[in-house]
Formats: sequence, C-alpha cells, structure tokens
Amino acid sequence: MAELPENIRLSPDGTGVVILDQTQLPRRQVFLTLGTAEEMYQAIRALQVRGAPAIGIFAGYCLYVLAGQLEREGLEGADFFARLDRLGKFLSSARPTAVNLSWAVERMSRRAASMAGAPAADIVRALGEEARAIRREDEEMCLSISRYGLSLLKEGDGVLTHCNAGPLATSRYGTGQGPFHLAAQLGMKLRVYADETRPLLQGARLTAWELQRAGVDVTLICDNMASMVMKQGWIQACMVGCDRVAANGDVANKIGTSAVAILARHYRIPFYVLGPTSTVDLGCPDGDHIPIEERDGEEIRSLWYREPMAPEGVTCYNPAFDVTPHQLITAIVTEKGICRPPYTRSLAALFAAEG
Amino acid sequence: MAELPENIRLSPDGTGVVILDQTQLPRRQVFLTLGTAEEMYQAIRALQVRGAPAIGIFAGYCLYVLAGQLEREGLEGADFFARLDRLGKFLSSARPTAVNLSWAVERMSRRAASMAGAPAADIVRALGEEARAIRREDEEMCLSISRYGLSLLKEGDGVLTHCNAGPLATSRYGTGQGPFHLAAQLGMKLRVYADETRPLLQGARLTAWELQRAGVDVTLICDNMASMVMKQGWIQACMVGCDRVAANGDVANKIGTSAVAILARHYRIPFYVLGPTSTVDLGCPDGDHIPIEERDGEEIRSLWYREPMAPEGVTCYNPAFDVTPHQLITAIVTEKGICRPPYTRSLAALFAAEG
Repeated sequence: MAELPENIRLSPDGTGVVILDQTQLPRRQVFLTLGTAEEMYQAIRALQVRGAPAIGIFAGYCLYVLAGQLEREGLEGADFFARLDRLGKFLSSARPTAVNLSWAVERMSRRAASMAGAPAADIVRALGEEARAIRREDEEMCLSISRYGLSLLKEGDGVLTHCNAGPLATSRYGTGQGPFHLAAQLGMKLRVYADETRPLLQGARLTAWELQRAGVDVTLICDNMASMVMKQGWIQACMVGCDRVAANGDVANKIGTSAVAILARHYRIPFYVLGPTSTVDLGCPDGDHIPIEERDGEEIRSLWYREPMAPEGVTCYNPAFDVTPHQLITAIVTEKGICRPPYTRSLAALFAAEG
Repeated sequence: MAELPENIRLSPDGTGVVILDQTQLPRRQVFLTLGTAEEMYQAIRALQVRGAPAIGIFAGYCLYVLAGQLEREGLEGADFFARLDRLGKFLSSARPTAVNLSWAVERMSRRAASMAGAPAADIVRALGEEARAIRREDEEMCLSISRYGLSLLKEGDGVLTHCNAGPLATSRYGTGQGPFHLAAQLGMKLRVYADETRPLLQGARLTAWELQRAGVDVTLICDNMASMVMKQGWIQACMVGCDRVAANGDVANKIGTSAVAILARHYRIPFYVLGPTSTVDLGCPDGDHIPIEERDGEEIRSLWYREPMAPEGVTCYNPAFDVTPHQLITAIVTEKGICRPPYTRSLAALFAAEG
C-alpha cells in the first residue's frame, strides 16, 4: 500500500505550482511546474489537473503565485486588485461546470479584498495562508465524507464507481471514492468495480491506478458493462462524486453518471453521491440550470490513438458531464452529514445549521 | 453514397474464403484469403469476420472450401464425413454465443449427409450451392427486416443504435442497422446516434464508417452518453441487432445492449430488436440459459493502444454480450414480421406459421 505522491503543491521558491500531470498516468509520473496564468489555464483545460476539489486547491495556489508576480512587478492598490481580478476571471473560465473553481477564486479574492489598503506583500502573504487553508480544509472534508460514506457500506460489499473522485481529484482520500481508500486504511475489505469512463478514461487510468496502489480489490469494466455487473448481483451500492449539486438534489457529474443511476434504480441498488458542501449550489434550482461543458469530438475520435479510431470527420457529440435527477439518488453524502430525500429540505438544512 | 465492397466471398479458384478484415477498419481496407481451418477459426475468434449473419455466411463458404480440400486429398465416404464433421465442430467452437455459426455448420452438414453415398466431388458441388444459398437468403432476409424496421420509423426520427449490425455484419443492408441503409437508399432522412461500443469499438469503427459512406446523418457517441442524448429528446427509437433470442423474448446481444434498453425504458423511448428468425432459439427458455462469452481483459486494458491505458495487471471483467430482458423490448423485428409481447406467443407463432 503506497502513499500517493502529493499531487498539487507549491514549488520550493513559491513562484510556481507543481502538479502531477494526470493525463500521463498510469504510464508515467510526470510533475509539471506552472508559472504563468496561461499555463495554469491550459492545465485545467487539458485536464492535467482535474477533479472538482483538486481544481479548487490548484486555483488557490495559482492565485497566490500570480499575486506574488504582481507584487514583484511593483503593482500596488487598485492596479494590483484590477490585475488580480482579471487573472481570477481568466482561471475561472477554464471549466464552466466546476463550481469549486469559481468558489476558490472568489474565496481568494475576498481574502485579498479584506486587506484593501495593505501593502501588496502583506496581501500576498495572506493569500498564501488562504491557499494552504483551502488545502487543509479539503483534507478534513474528504476524511469526513469518507467516514460518512463508509458508514453506508459493510465488509465484503461490491461498489460500482464512475470516473475519478479519489486522492488525485482532491487533497487526500477523495470524495466519491474516499470510502474505498479509508476502508483500505482500516483493513476493511470491499470489492470495487471501476467504470473506465470514456472518452478520457479517468476510471481506467486514475481510479484503477489509485485503488490498485492502495491495495483495494478493484475490477475495471467498460462503461457499458455496468448493467451486466449489477445483474450478476455483484454490486451492493454505487458511489460517485459530483461537480455540482442543485438545490433540489439534481447532480451534475462526469458524463455517464445518470446512466449508472438509472441502471441502479432498475436493479434496486442504492446510488450515493458524495461531495463537499462547496459543490452544493442552492442558487441553482435544478439540473436544467446547470451549464454542461461540451468538449472536442477529437477526444472520442482519436485522442487516445496513434491512429484514428473512427472515420475522419465523423460527427461526434462529446458532453463532459450529465445531470442525474434527484429521484434516482438514494443519498447525498457531504462532510457535514448524509442528506436523504426530499433534498430541497435536507440540502438547505446543511447550510441553515451553519447560521 | 458508395456501395460497400463485398465483405465475404470465395477466392476466384474456390480454394479460399476472402474477407474484409474488420479489425483494420476504418483505417485500411485489407482483404484476407483464408485457406485453412485454423485460419478460419482465428478469423472468427479475432473478430476479423463478425456479426451473426456474416459468421453464418462465412461458415458456409469455409465448409465448402474445406470439403474441397478433403476431396483433393482423395477422401471419400465415411472418412470424408468424419473429417468434415470434425472441421464443422472446430469452427463452431470459435464463438459459443453466435447461434448462426452452429446453425450454418449444421445446415451444411445436413446437405452433405443428404448425399451420403455420392462421390465427394458431387458433395462438394452441393455444398457450394448451399453456401451460396445461405448468402442469397441472408440478403433477402436483411431486406425484409429492414423494410419491417423502417415501418417503425418516420422521416426525421433520431435513432440510437449499439455495436454493428449493418452490411459488414451481414450480406447487405444489415439487421439492426438495415433500416438506416434502406432509408438512405430511399432518400428518407434519419438522424442516427451510434454508440462507440467498447471495448472493441464496433460502433466507432464499423457502424460510423458504414453509415457515413451511405450518406446517413450519423453522430458517434461514447456508450455512457446514451442517457444524455435520450434526455435531450433527440432519440425517437432504439434499434439493435441480436445474437440470440430466447423463447420468452430475452435477447443476447453485444455487451451494453441491456443498458440501452433500461435507459430507453426510463426515457419512454421504444426499444426495437431486429434479427433473423435464425437467431430465435425456441429451445432456450430464457436469457439465463444463454451462455455468455467472456473475453480477454487485454481488450479493455491495452488492445487499442500502443501504450497500456490502464495499470499493468489490473483485474478486468470483459463479457462480450449481455442479456436484455423481454420486459424492456418494445418489439422484435424479424424477416417474417414484427413480434410484440407476449413473446412466448408471438415468437412461437413465427415458426408455427411455417408448418
């Protein structure tokens, strides 16, 4: 059981963000140091860093590094804030569906704004604290979600999961797959079935890699095999992460998630969504209001091939996410507890309790 | 609109079977000439020739070619029949789920047996007639299925399909995808959504290629996108082929088919199975009695990659087919007509009418 390398961190001199390039896994472990806003934007866009919480942590470190550059350029006051604001908006635009991205950018901006009037050097120092706090809180959040999620499983259970919502997608443990990593740490045996998750194969490349390293009994299947595996009686629960949860409990997550939920309903298997309260968007009434990113058809046609795998120029439809209606979701597991239907009430209660 | 090359035929001198190697599409059109039973077995096994009716046509030509070799070796009478019988059993064992394979082998054997006592040369000639008849009847059968199937669609409909059941899988037109090719020929517009069909990507490589060549408006999607496409309201019907139909209407077809059926039921979209009566097995009471071929996990892990796409040695589950329960099937379309529930009655009636 090998501890995973830290996948997002500051470079030793604090002028860059170091990431484990997820597009090169499982073949190679390559770390990239990103120093410019353009590189950071591209890293999010190209999925070198991915997973909602990981993107939030990454955005925090990025804004700290970029703020440091503004300070070294001698910017102060309104000029400093105007540039920082533009950089935050630019990073936010890299992936419209990931609410954690804009959440982290806004949190960093608020921290900066709270120090209006202070020298840029002090603001940069505060942003460093804030970025580290985002990371630390994420780790606590993941552990909490993993504990709640594990309380829904028992020794020997088979669990089907989709995409990647493990350590690579977060700070540690993960969300949708956090219970599997926590179970491994506690010596509890589970059987995990990982959908490969086309087109980018996060399940095959990342989830299977993480779980294998953690010593979990993992079986990789193609997405279209989930129905068969459920029919065999091998699955006692489905667990997935989420990119955004609407106020009524509709969940946007990696494309294919809604299909898993429909299949689970058909086979009477509970379908659990695990995610931090930061992905719950009470301002969004339902799934129809969640914008869905559509990505390049080349990802289906040829990205993973040296040679094309489909006819040249064939039309592709390549949505990156889909929405799982709340009626198909057995529970939504957050770091603050387990929400059950009706979600309009249980999700709102999560936030009300804070007040 | 290009006519497809004939994908299974005899070599000019009749000593080999020429096939279009489906594993090399859409990149290259490579024709292979197969002269030995081992080569023929491997071609079925490796899916160089695939699709239930195509395998039947192929098996007919193969037995004709192999019988010719036995004759040239000077075999006659009991020796000739014993060797021919062994060769038929050997070919049949290449794919246990494809009922057309054993059906064609048995039909050829019956024709040979009907000529017991005749010189080997005469038997070989008769087997040549029988093989050509299998092909001709398949073309008539496909046209009939395609007409019945097309009667279930209207101009402008969106149709989702899975795997390949088009011209390459048959003699011409196809079964599950025959209506799309017939529609193109008749100038009727349809919008076809083709699941790529992991792990071997028959939808991406073959179906998309065939439909694009035929001038059909085709959009390729990953298997896990079917739910999303249905939710958008783009799909008015699902049409798939079948490898075996049990007496109660349960259908074995390419892995992932049952998932499409469950999704279609969820979105209240009709789900049609199209196939020849030769795939209906009244001796098989239900889907639980259909043996499901499990294939090498390497197909998921690395077959389509120059480099591995999943961790080395990761456990894979790779069933090639799944069973769609009859409750999820709106109609089963055969060349003799359209069967509706209850299938125990309507399927049996197909055969009763023959009597």
